[in-house]
Amino acid sequence: MTIPLSDLLRHLGPVDLSAVDARSTPGFDGGKDDAKAALGALGPELADLQERLHAGGRAETTDRSVLLVLQGMDTAGKGGTISTVAGLVDPQGLALASFGKPTPEELEHDFLWRVERRLPTAGQIGIFDRSHYEDVLIGRVRQLAEPAEIERRYDAINDFERRFTDHGGVVVKCLLHIDRDVQAERLRARLEDPTKYWKYNPGDIDERAFWDDYQRAYEIAVERCSTEAAPWHIVPAGRKWYRNWAVATLLAETLRGLDLAWPPADFDPQAELARLEADT
Amino acid sequence: MTIPLSDLLRHLGPVDLSAVDARSTPGFDGGKDDAKAALGALGPELADLQERLHAGGRAETTDRSVLLVLQGMDTAGKGGTISTVAGLVDPQGLALASFGKPTPEELEHDFLWRVERRLPTAGQIGIFDRSHYEDVLIGRVRQLAEPAEIERRYDAINDFERRFTDHGGVVVKCLLHIDRDVQAERLRARLEDPTKYWKYNPGDIDERAFWDDYQRAYEIAVERCSTEAAPWHIVPAGRKWYRNWAVATLLAETLRGLDLAWPPADFDPQAELARLEADT
Repeated sequence: MTIPLSDLLRHLGPVDLSAVDARSTPGFDGGKDDAKAALGALGPELADLQERLHAGGRAETTDRSVLLVLQGMDTAGKGGTISTVAGLVDPQGLALASFGKPTPEELEHDFLWRVERRLPTAGQIGIFDRSHYEDVLIGRVRQLAEPAEIERRYDAINDFERRFTDHGGVVVKCLLHIDRDVQAERLRARLEDPTKYWKYNPGDIDERAFWDDYQRAYEIAVERCSTEAAPWHIVPAGRKWYRNWAVATLLAETLRGLDLAWPPADFDPQAELARLEADT
Repeated sequence: MTIPLSDLLRHLGPVDLSAVDARSTPGFDGGKDDAKAALGALGPELADLQERLHAGGRAETTDRSVLLVLQGMDTAGKGGTISTVAGLVDPQGLALASFGKPTPEELEHDFLWRVERRLPTAGQIGIFDRSHYEDVLIGRVRQLAEPAEIERRYDAINDFERRFTDHGGVVVKCLLHIDRDVQAERLRARLEDPTKYWKYNPGDIDERAFWDDYQRAYEIAVERCSTEAAPWHIVPAGRKWYRNWAVATLLAETLRGLDLAWPPADFDPQAELARLEADT
């Protein structure tokens, strides 16, 4: 019997990220080619499941939606995961949102304001490239808010996610975990390839000075905000092929769990066929 | 020498849609399998071109964007085209918008209001599933506005599209052309397959009574709004494989025409590599 990947990667309670091998491949026996083949094989099922979800949203027969939250250090591969995994399904059923430095307008509101308006609606798969967690990650490390405000946010996040899941949503939170060496290797690759310069920012190296603080901030976020309703998954992301397979698999497991049926007809198919014949 | 597909399908001036064979395949020698192979072969180039455009947008080195407008009768395949063609590129570079019956809020504004806010920004490929043309198509056929207002809209559309192209945008307008028989066949397929019920609406048959009026409305829209800046292409869509290949090819020709270079570094790569080495 195979253990669901979500059971393997889910973390509830305290976590020590330094003990997680970024290049490990839990739940996957095989190498790069095997993982690519497994991902390809998952594609048609994922597309079918998503079309069912999308159909239910369009026909207003479901209130289900899925939110995939991707967090990770620079170069952990949030963008690459989205490109690969989201690329397996119909873009018409996706709601992608990327959260960068808050705008002046966003700063005038509570930190959840900009996130709430980008939540997927019924039938959609939403994918967040960074998220409300930034406000307890960089927010904590770079002290962008008072300590008491940072403290308040963990509970606010749990309440927020709970409201979402109480109304048909499912949250899949993935921490794409890399180590300092993997990041150095990937930054180097960006600096050695002119087609990748646009992905590089000199600030990325400045931020490396805070590596341990970021790891601690991630650990606290997982400890405080991994709930039964919206658990965190720690996805080793030192190998891109494992990361892509793992996130796609978590998404597939989630969609399978929704028992998505095709929407029934709200008309009489035989009567409509007769109308059509009379008209042709 | 091959004639660009955009030259073959572009229509400027009066058009008689009844003279366009919906099952024809202009510019393509071959059948279904050949077209699928050709589309597959186009995928990597399309993905590369789009990544360059997206990179330029992210790095703020380009003001270019592309807007693909898809119009067509029910079952012409707007959704299927988006799923197939948009599925070839990174969803993070896409801005999809679908325009249905206007909401009460939208009706309080000029017809272009809801469309303007969904235009792609620099670096994006926007795809409109229906568009501002609905307001001179169903708007005209079902008399949803006064005749003088309908008349005003053609020029307003031309001005609107001109403003967009004056600021780095490129508009690719595709009329997915089917005939009444193709529509009947596809409606029948939806009524005979429970996994497609959600795509069917009894109103689709009511609308068939206005078929000739819709064709005339399309002809007028093409005649009045096919401009050098934003020409209309008439894409025979009776064969899905041709339609998908044709729209992907029009998009590829458009992107090639933008001469998209990778954004240059706004930092010194050697100096950054040295900083990185010092840090690892």
